[in-house]
Amino acid sequence: MNEQINQTKRTKLKRIPKRGNFERAEIYKILDEAIVCHVGFAVENQPFVIPTSFARIDDRLMIHGSAASRMMRSLREEIDVCVTVTLIDGLVLARSAFHHSINYRSVVVFGKAKIIEDDKEKYEALQAFTEHIVPGRWSEIRPPTANELKATTVLSLPLSEASAKIRTGNPVDDEEDYDLDVWAGVLPLNLTTGKPISDDRLKKGMSVPSNILNYSRRK
Amino acid sequence: MNEQINQTKRTKLKRIPKRGNFERAEIYKILDEAIVCHVGFAVENQPFVIPTSFARIDDRLMIHGSAASRMMRSLREEIDVCVTVTLIDGLVLARSAFHHSINYRSVVVFGKAKIIEDDKEKYEALQAFTEHIVPGRWSEIRPPTANELKATTVLSLPLSEASAKIRTGNPVDDEEDYDLDVWAGVLPLNLTTGKPISDDRLKKGMSVPSNILNYSRRK
Repeated sequence: MNEQINQTKRTKLKRIPKRGNFERAEIYKILDEAIVCHVGFAVENQPFVIPTSFARIDDRLMIHGSAASRMMRSLREEIDVCVTVTLIDGLVLARSAFHHSINYRSVVVFGKAKIIEDDKEKYEALQAFTEHIVPGRWSEIRPPTANELKATTVLSLPLSEASAKIRTGNPVDDEEDYDLDVWAGVLPLNLTTGKPISDDRLKKGMSVPSNILNYSRRK
Repeated sequence: MNEQINQTKRTKLKRIPKRGNFERAEIYKILDEAIVCHVGFAVENQPFVIPTSFARIDDRLMIHGSAASRMMRSLREEIDVCVTVTLIDGLVLARSAFHHSINYRSVVVFGKAKIIEDDKEKYEALQAFTEHIVPGRWSEIRPPTANELKATTVLSLPLSEASAKIRTGNPVDDEEDYDLDVWAGVLPLNLTTGKPISDDRLKKGMSVPSNILNYSRRK
């Protein structure tokens, strides 16, 4: 319980280490709530940061894309990758400009991604991508064909070198500033859903399923 | 008017080029709506992707941090950087797993960041960071002292090599799938505010300012 992921030179927090969190359960909760991750890789020291959807299967982070994309062509060479996920929870409004901040939960994963060749494993990854977007969606839709499976490259990154960074709570002002005539506090921010918009070509009689009507990223 | 930023080898879209947008006005609108960016850089081909707050001043993207942080120590050497901003607008729920997607607006900026040494310029950047978080906040709070200015490193990245990528609208399904008994459409997602939480040590008589009560990232 509360298994900790070992710190490494890459994941060790140099600044404000009290914000660091290496609990596997906490890291996975953040990954599972996020919709997209930012995939970082370097080609001859030129960095690229690409937003992309993803899914977690047990202790692996899966990403997918077209085999033709720069990201997939680069990562399949098993170069070092850094995947970062960030959730914004609120604005931290202090009495001084200097102490303004953001409440957030972020995860950084380092490692090398491996291409998934096995069709069964790849199929399970596609299921995980769909379920990551909308839990319960997989059983409602047409699953991938053999050709669609072939057209998708899936990469798997082990969640063995990962860390979370979390800021919560009130602003922390300099002692002498608490007496200033300034409102201070936190403005919470949430990713919320609007009303579902049915496709123009929706088949007659189809109603919005409950997993979409009651959708929330928070578990 | 609709000024276009020149495409380069790095910003040219290899896949789904119709999603690409090189209009300066559109790129700036996305940057101004986002709260954080993801800063990518490589040290000996090891990529790092760090979420951080930022601000735009005219044709420059400003980021800040402690001089001691790895990001600031690395970037001040004027190495190549890739800054990515992503806004999630909705889930695109198709009839097949394969055509599920996300409506998003993202911007990628390439270049080298330069450290801002001039105190007046640095002070203006700190103002821009605060105003980026909450417009109007700067005039309500205590501005930075000389020591706070000194403790902050500010970097400026020219917005000369940047591109946006945008997906909007309905799912696009395979023609034969439109007849399936599947609800399809878009679930809109928005970053919305909760009720402001006053600091525990709020001075008596302070009320929540209107720019926080009526807060919205969309202009």
